[in-house]
Amino acid sequence: MSQADNPFLALAAPWIAGLTPYVPGKPISELERELGIRDSVKLASNENPLGPGPKARAAIAAMLDEIGRYPDGGGFELRRALADFHNVSPASITLGNGSNDVLDLVARTFLQPGVESLFSEFAFAVYPIATQAVGATARVAKARDYGHDLNAMASLVTDQTRVVWIANPNNPTGTWLSAQALKSFLGALPKTCVVVIDEAYTEYVSEPDFPDTTHWIESCPNLIVTRTFAKAHGLAALRIGYGISDPRVADLLNRVRQPFNVNAMAQAAAAAAIADREHVRASVELNRAGMRQLTEAFVRLGLDYIPSVGNFVTLNLGRPAGPINDALLHRGVIVRPVGNYGLPNHLRISVGLEQENARFIDALEDVLAA
Amino acid sequence: MSQADNPFLALAAPWIAGLTPYVPGKPISELERELGIRDSVKLASNENPLGPGPKARAAIAAMLDEIGRYPDGGGFELRRALADFHNVSPASITLGNGSNDVLDLVARTFLQPGVESLFSEFAFAVYPIATQAVGATARVAKARDYGHDLNAMASLVTDQTRVVWIANPNNPTGTWLSAQALKSFLGALPKTCVVVIDEAYTEYVSEPDFPDTTHWIESCPNLIVTRTFAKAHGLAALRIGYGISDPRVADLLNRVRQPFNVNAMAQAAAAAAIADREHVRASVELNRAGMRQLTEAFVRLGLDYIPSVGNFVTLNLGRPAGPINDALLHRGVIVRPVGNYGLPNHLRISVGLEQENARFIDALEDVLAA
Repeated sequence: MSQADNPFLALAAPWIAGLTPYVPGKPISELERELGIRDSVKLASNENPLGPGPKARAAIAAMLDEIGRYPDGGGFELRRALADFHNVSPASITLGNGSNDVLDLVARTFLQPGVESLFSEFAFAVYPIATQAVGATARVAKARDYGHDLNAMASLVTDQTRVVWIANPNNPTGTWLSAQALKSFLGALPKTCVVVIDEAYTEYVSEPDFPDTTHWIESCPNLIVTRTFAKAHGLAALRIGYGISDPRVADLLNRVRQPFNVNAMAQAAAAAAIADREHVRASVELNRAGMRQLTEAFVRLGLDYIPSVGNFVTLNLGRPAGPINDALLHRGVIVRPVGNYGLPNHLRISVGLEQENARFIDALEDVLAA
Repeated sequence: MSQADNPFLALAAPWIAGLTPYVPGKPISELERELGIRDSVKLASNENPLGPGPKARAAIAAMLDEIGRYPDGGGFELRRALADFHNVSPASITLGNGSNDVLDLVARTFLQPGVESLFSEFAFAVYPIATQAVGATARVAKARDYGHDLNAMASLVTDQTRVVWIANPNNPTGTWLSAQALKSFLGALPKTCVVVIDEAYTEYVSEPDFPDTTHWIESCPNLIVTRTFAKAHGLAALRIGYGISDPRVADLLNRVRQPFNVNAMAQAAAAAAIADREHVRASVELNRAGMRQLTEAFVRLGLDYIPSVGNFVTLNLGRPAGPINDALLHRGVIVRPVGNYGLPNHLRISVGLEQENARFIDALEDVLAA
């Protein structure tokens, strides 16, 4: 809908015009009906194919009699569980309706018209959206080998930069930054900005020099680390993520937070899931095997891909990915085109169960042979 | 935490300093432990004491195998169900993580520093918070008989007014506005503002001249009507509310909305609950009997209360309510002090089950006799 078609834009804050209207995707059931397919496989949203573990499932079941009651607005039990797990104070925790919500809280707290927000090319799509939604100016650093180029980012920092966003590992490229690289970048930043390290995929990474930055907050109080239960913990349907920061930063984020932003099911499930190391271990192991299955097929098929430490891998088809994606869809395989990230020749594939990965590989082989 | 104590306020948008830090309340289990009480009764949050109906319960149970998957970001099924129920287009619907989220979306879309937001004294607490969180200026009209004084509100409208908020019925006072009064107010407003009619408690009202304003949007396209599933539908734990508006207004609200703002459990439960008229009927009937039980006791005890059409009633104690609230707490009865609304002598009591209402009445009688 253009501005000419929507007279209400004249009443809105001026930056609303620059926000892309959300085009709702169709649920799988609708898509299947329209395409005349059945039993499709979804490898599109970096979900955990195992779903939640037994502890989270039991916690959800125990909540079913409490649905009429408001959630705990302070998230008392969950914040205590997270604080115990990370060995920080509960006052360091900001709960979000997914980590997207925490990212939005950071933007609403520290950004405004006239100040700048800095992120990398090919970084997670929420950073530019959260920036635009509060009317701040986005600065975008060129990527290097599809990943964050910290030198390029450092060169774009100004005294108007208020938030720097870093995804580690990055979605949709699966690239990552070492502890040393990240530490020197942080050390050189002025104190006039906060830095978000978005660690949504951290559980999947086994590289020895990959950092757990939750330990850095005491020495770097401008740091906000975000985590989610949507990936390795298998709770995507419920929406629950969190930020860890200096309590004084958390105090500001919690001022903007809607008091009942995290539903009661999510709170109970997450408090149980954080302690379920066995389920995370099994999920990570399954992911490792599936990643091997996918990348071995790519090598066999002579396809170029971006090496990934996440639970997804992005394929470079060397030609527009749209028609190939359509052909996969008609074969009942749903993956993620990433043209909106400036990667029109790429497709992102989430690692699924062995048989799901196999169906994707077969369909891809079929499509490429056609 | 004062500004002097929090150096990060200097990095934040200037209006963040004016937001009251959220002080998380303790969950009932913690409160009971601290007070050394058990089996407390909670009549504090205007919840439905029956919880969800059987259709919603079944829909939730059917979602338990889908917890690993992201919710439908477009809310396809739920928007279709709501559109059918209200006889509007799905493009008129904005889904929220509770209706609080929809109110926040309205503020983020239409408010900004330099413009004005208008609401009444004693109106729902989220209006001033949502206004302050985006740096706009709040104008507050004096109430009349604890309710909205539409003449006083109209006199405060300027060409800088962008959002007018009206709760009908109002929380925490239970007062309401007739169709005719509201219609003339809307007719006289300039086209430079949108009007939110917050109908969170609409299902409880039986007064014949109480309006269903969802039918007014075609003739008044600046109108945004908000509804919730947290009250009569008994889904407070899950967080789900919605706005109905002209599709061009919904287009703007949906630009600011986080794509996965409504969890999958809430979507499924709400789509089932909207069609469950029998559960709403039973909930409203229970509320009517409970309201009679409470108000008859107030009359017997010679206590002054604000006549309410909602699922709560606010008592005027004629002296500071804090000590009485504390005494009730020690007797295991949790109600809501409303000093933050400028009503330090009042207590708001949600209508509960018959035995819950009786426990409150006994405890109150006991406390007042002491």
